[in-house]
Amino acid sequence: MTRSLTGKFKGVGKLAAVLVGENSASVLYLRKKGELAEKLGVKFELVKLPKNSSTKKVVEEIQRLNSDKGVAGIIVQLPLPKQIDVDVVVNAALPNKDVDGLTDANILSGNVLPATATGILRLLTEYKIDLRNKKIGLVGFTRLLNLPLSLHFARLGNSVVVLQEGTKNFGELKMVDVIITAVGKPGLISGKDIKWGAVVIDAGIVTINGKVRGDCDASVSKMAGWMTPVPGGVGPMTVVSLLVNLKKLAKTRL
Amino acid sequence: MTRSLTGKFKGVGKLAAVLVGENSASVLYLRKKGELAEKLGVKFELVKLPKNSSTKKVVEEIQRLNSDKGVAGIIVQLPLPKQIDVDVVVNAALPNKDVDGLTDANILSGNVLPATATGILRLLTEYKIDLRNKKIGLVGFTRLLNLPLSLHFARLGNSVVVLQEGTKNFGELKMVDVIITAVGKPGLISGKDIKWGAVVIDAGIVTINGKVRGDCDASVSKMAGWMTPVPGGVGPMTVVSLLVNLKKLAKTRL
Repeated sequence: MTRSLTGKFKGVGKLAAVLVGENSASVLYLRKKGELAEKLGVKFELVKLPKNSSTKKVVEEIQRLNSDKGVAGIIVQLPLPKQIDVDVVVNAALPNKDVDGLTDANILSGNVLPATATGILRLLTEYKIDLRNKKIGLVGFTRLLNLPLSLHFARLGNSVVVLQEGTKNFGELKMVDVIITAVGKPGLISGKDIKWGAVVIDAGIVTINGKVRGDCDASVSKMAGWMTPVPGGVGPMTVVSLLVNLKKLAKTRL
Repeated sequence: MTRSLTGKFKGVGKLAAVLVGENSASVLYLRKKGELAEKLGVKFELVKLPKNSSTKKVVEEIQRLNSDKGVAGIIVQLPLPKQIDVDVVVNAALPNKDVDGLTDANILSGNVLPATATGILRLLTEYKIDLRNKKIGLVGFTRLLNLPLSLHFARLGNSVVVLQEGTKNFGELKMVDVIITAVGKPGLISGKDIKWGAVVIDAGIVTINGKVRGDCDASVSKMAGWMTPVPGGVGPMTVVSLLVNLKKLAKTRL
């Protein structure tokens, strides 16, 4: 999956990540991001800030990275400690360095999609799944994935329906051709809820008692025409997508 | 239509509008906004800046209004002269004073919808048009109307399809129950393009040779179950909506 990216980062500049505190999952994700970056010839700088940092302190650090011409991309590793205003911190990054695609400006313009969204679209392309004139069902609606995807698919002219857990129109899931679910509630979707042959992307990944699970139960695979496995489907694509976004942003700055 | 707003603005603070240059349509719209505000007991302040003002100058003026506690709402009258960065200027207003609902933050959160969108939803409510489980077709996709409406309807769980002029899926217009069009191209939609009984909101208003026209031609009224007239439909609602938004924002600041 990373083959097509090899050797394409010459002179692009480094990737910087801001980590506040020591959340163990965050440390693990950042290690994976750093490893892939260095494998592809991109320098990786980890900026560690203490857990009790203020919003102002984190913003100042991001502004320093904004004005550093050697930095091509900035990751703000989520989640952030509770005292921090996430909206303010995420939007402090310059949109043209926002490799995670999380600033308001990038979400609205669609210039850079969030890494998970980029990963899912890449996955669909790699498997030659044609989305033209398909009806898309998005389950859950956050700015990390389905909100920006709703804008993306709307711009393409796809019919899009957003379903929330517990809404009375959940039955509409049976009418859609492609399901992208990201709620984080294992067993939310069963085979009986979906259309025969639907494409199912399960990004609702949580770890329960050490086991990684998605929103779909085992019966979904019997109805789906194609679906992503959990674990191993959407997750690894997200890391790759950061580098895809980095390359895209580097181009727009040239 | 303004009856329900009378007497509800005591102690709310004033409405300020920033006008750059002397565009005659802008002057007319602002006069209407000012007249309605004063009729409802809201003070109206017009800040006039010269046509050749820089982005920096306009932003500074908005920041002054941001920090003025007597100002409850800020309008940045569009269009702005070409030398000005519209994105920067529009986003300079504090989201909780952004009565036009045009800042990135308000568009994404849906806290305040753009005035035209607020007006259309109000119109549908007044005429008791039930949107539950209806499929919505949005024609054109700008941040002034259909982009924020797509997020709004998506959050409600409606099925939404966005159609652009000239896209090959324009035929999908025949499948939707409610059409909201805002392209500004007279004759774009004919009766044969739509479903029998559809609700049609025409916000694609342009003036050609002194005549005000919408996106729909005359044959649409024969197929539609309900539709807004042009002129006289969506336009007047927009002015009222500024005051509806002002009231809503004033509440969130208390």
